[in-house]
Amino acid sequence: MNKTFTADLNCDMGEGFGAYDMGNDEAIMPFVSSVNIACGFHAGDPSVMKRTVRLALKHGLAIGAHPGLPDLQGFGRRELAISPEEAYDLVVYQTGALNAFVQTEGGRLKHVKPHGALYNMAAKNKELSDAIAEAVYNIDPNLVLYGLSGSELIRSGINAGLNVANEVFADRTYQQDGSLTPRRSANALITDHHTAISQVIRMIKDGNVQSEQGVPVFIQADTICIHGDGKFAVEFAQQIYAAFQQEGIQIKAFSPKQQ
Amino acid sequence: MNKTFTADLNCDMGEGFGAYDMGNDEAIMPFVSSVNIACGFHAGDPSVMKRTVRLALKHGLAIGAHPGLPDLQGFGRRELAISPEEAYDLVVYQTGALNAFVQTEGGRLKHVKPHGALYNMAAKNKELSDAIAEAVYNIDPNLVLYGLSGSELIRSGINAGLNVANEVFADRTYQQDGSLTPRRSANALITDHHTAISQVIRMIKDGNVQSEQGVPVFIQADTICIHGDGKFAVEFAQQIYAAFQQEGIQIKAFSPKQQ
Amino acid sequence: MNKTFTADLNCDMGEGFGAYDMGNDEAIMPFVSSVNIACGFHAGDPSVMKRTVRLALKHGLAIGAHPGLPDLQGFGRRELAISPEEAYDLVVYQTGALNAFVQTEGGRLKHVKPHGALYNMAAKNKELSDAIAEAVYNIDPNLVLYGLSGSELIRSGINAGLNVANEVFADRTYQQDGSLTPRRSANALITDHHTAISQVIRMIKDGNVQSEQGVPVFIQADTICIHGDGKFAVEFAQQIYAAFQQEGIQIKAFSPKQQ
Amino acid sequence: MNKTFTADLNCDMGEGFGAYDMGNDEAIMPFVSSVNIACGFHAGDPSVMKRTVRLALKHGLAIGAHPGLPDLQGFGRRELAISPEEAYDLVVYQTGALNAFVQTEGGRLKHVKPHGALYNMAAKNKELSDAIAEAVYNIDPNLVLYGLSGSELIRSGINAGLNVANEVFADRTYQQDGSLTPRRSANALITDHHTAISQVIRMIKDGNVQSEQGVPVFIQADTICIHGDGKFAVEFAQQIYAAFQQEGIQIKAFSPKQQ
Repeated sequence: MNKTFTADLNCDMGEGFGAYDMGNDEAIMPFVSSVNIACGFHAGDPSVMKRTVRLALKHGLAIGAHPGLPDLQGFGRRELAISPEEAYDLVVYQTGALNAFVQTEGGRLKHVKPHGALYNMAAKNKELSDAIAEAVYNIDPNLVLYGLSGSELIRSGINAGLNVANEVFADRTYQQDGSLTPRRSANALITDHHTAISQVIRMIKDGNVQSEQGVPVFIQADTICIHGDGKFAVEFAQQIYAAFQQEGIQIKAFSPKQQ
Repeated sequence: MNKTFTADLNCDMGEGFGAYDMGNDEAIMPFVSSVNIACGFHAGDPSVMKRTVRLALKHGLAIGAHPGLPDLQGFGRRELAISPEEAYDLVVYQTGALNAFVQTEGGRLKHVKPHGALYNMAAKNKELSDAIAEAVYNIDPNLVLYGLSGSELIRSGINAGLNVANEVFADRTYQQDGSLTPRRSANALITDHHTAISQVIRMIKDGNVQSEQGVPVFIQADTICIHGDGKFAVEFAQQIYAAFQQEGIQIKAFSPKQQ
Repeated sequence: MNKTFTADLNCDMGEGFGAYDMGNDEAIMPFVSSVNIACGFHAGDPSVMKRTVRLALKHGLAIGAHPGLPDLQGFGRRELAISPEEAYDLVVYQTGALNAFVQTEGGRLKHVKPHGALYNMAAKNKELSDAIAEAVYNIDPNLVLYGLSGSELIRSGINAGLNVANEVFADRTYQQDGSLTPRRSANALITDHHTAISQVIRMIKDGNVQSEQGVPVFIQADTICIHGDGKFAVEFAQQIYAAFQQEGIQIKAFSPKQQ
Repeated sequence: MNKTFTADLNCDMGEGFGAYDMGNDEAIMPFVSSVNIACGFHAGDPSVMKRTVRLALKHGLAIGAHPGLPDLQGFGRRELAISPEEAYDLVVYQTGALNAFVQTEGGRLKHVKPHGALYNMAAKNKELSDAIAEAVYNIDPNLVLYGLSGSELIRSGINAGLNVANEVFADRTYQQDGSLTPRRSANALITDHHTAISQVIRMIKDGNVQSEQGVPVFIQADTICIHGDGKFAVEFAQQIYAAFQQEGIQIKAFSPKQQ
């Protein structure tokens, strides 16, 4: 009998702000299982958050908080030297704010995934990742912590007693040590949709990825991030969705019980 | 037998931001029963919020959210033409954020009191006050809504099914119709502590206040606001506390069951 | 011999912020003579400002500062109860900031036009408009102040000793008293391009506009505002440009010497 | 005949924001020769800036712009990974804004000194310091660039063709290589006023400082920074002022012609 595979496809959403739009949330929602909603610091404002929560609930998606650094101008992508305590505080604040919208709209918050530079800093800096994991645990020990596959943030989540989801990227290449090829490198991004989709399917089915050094590397793929902005975002979401159906991979929000 | 009186003394707190301090929270806490903690829009930041929540819990005080307009430069005191839906959204956001700190610190949020221009706009504008009351109710129907005594906000709270606390001010004079004397007027403020305290005691014991027009006016005094900034804030808090003890007025957080 | 007509077509630009784009500045620049560049409070950031100044200089356009209220979330469109002194201060600040980019890029600032709610408040409130005119004059008495045709801001500019440009709108209808039909009204906007262009040509050539009440109203049309956002913004810019060429109306930045 | 010494005493000022005060500008101004005024990103707002410029002009002080990182919550003290181009842009923006107040108040901007983390990053990172120096030069080649004595920022200023002022600190200890002892170290700060003042006098008169390693180190002391916040700031300003008078050191704004 064939083994059944499931995959969680997640996408960052609610990244508009006031008069500014970003991404194409509504068009992508039919193809994903989980959304990470910006919480007002790097993107999102209270009204955008409410609308996005409503839309996600309408599509039956798992909702996560997507807290970021307080840097709207830099979209939370510029590292800011915050202390672990400041990281704790801004995760509690932003997650609490999003949670209020989820609850008042009749839903239930499922996960937390740090955004941008906060995500990257937390992948490498144990003090930061411990603080973030502690914040998530204190808010609700049932929340799942999403982090870069195999990173410090994943370890901190486990140590804190949280369920964790190891995140992989469809459109990024990997190094021999399992880390992402830095964005500055020429080969950091996979722009060919077919190649990206093949890589993801291999991660899910075989549990490894071909590294830039040419050797396969073990990788835990609990959830796959696809990007909602960019010209071909909707098209790519449709393609990966179709490929998963063809391959018999069920798209389903991450659930710790599956593991 | 003597009638027993109780009074809720509330004070706005957590109004610092980053490197900026405001007020003298710790010195005033021993003399009040409730605190309204700023939520990051007109004052307060995540770290200030956590510290203030901790301090309030240590003093056994009832904690309320104090959401304001997104105007740090104006300290939330300048009217901003937001829509009722925007008012709803910013109350959900800020209350949710503060609530996360209260819960992670082991407490329970008791009330919500809008700040500054939002408070004043909600006292007169039924569309805004309805939106705010709806936001509070949706977050938690057990929350008490604090508003200007006899204002639209109080009516909206009652209509929404919330318990409400009619707020009076020790250091402000009142008009014949029960409204506050506008701040621009020469007699708006009561600067003499003795006069202010006498007015409050009369409000509590007799249920009325001497208006600027010379006639007594009925006033509902469920909670008394004292100010935490200003040179004599701590001194005044001590005096009103001492006067209440002498008069047999018990200082106790507002509880709907009392009424 | 035929009378020669000239018209200044102006457009708000540089309204992006960080990762957020707005409008289509580069596509519209070939069709206008003046641009009003956002200065960081309601839209724009230092990097967007520099890029927009460069682009405008490349197209040989007259550059104006477009200061707004400190309300990025509301895009400066929500009235905020600032004092005249605060209005003065924020015009000096924002105009100075933009001026620094214009000068370091080798250009010369030509005009100032308040944005959104600040523009509308200054059209009716003499204290605000006087403060704004004084700020502009103090920065440079050679700057032209752009304001709603016939408004308080125009009067304040004249009183302050500034050259002023009476602004009209192609896509808005007018009332019998020369004021704009409020946006809430059903007929506020002219969505048909042909009608809008005919109205503008009549304003320029005949100095009047057909009011909603059916009678022609005198109107001073020193400069015409066209909008840079919206789906058909570029198309409309092209059409008005073509129509002006056909009608022998020369598109040229406003110059006080013309008058 | 005795050699005459002059010293520039500079102090960061205008660091309030809205309702928040910081420092005691007015009390310290009589004792310094130059002020660095915050420009709205890490501290300061347009109204604070105007008031501080007025006060500085009243005291006849040399005025400099004090641009910082866009991080009000962190008071510009947390490193933010901005690009050199972003550094250029934010220096042009903030210096232009402050310059507008200086000029409209009848003064003339004399220098630029980056604040906090921007200052520290520019002391070590040549790409950033080059960008900052280029921004200052493009605004006005007569502006003096203030930077940490002997740092990259000083070198970039010289390379750009600017006059530079090497800044030393009265209350910080130095390392054998002329760098400041990092703030984390136990001995980073000199809290004894007498020791601090002796160190400064030696820097001015002898051109060296006793390093923490026990050996004297050459140091260029064109300008001395004293801090305006802290409980004893005014007292220290008075003491250093008095000591300089006694030692025959004339307190005078830095002027490139002196050198």
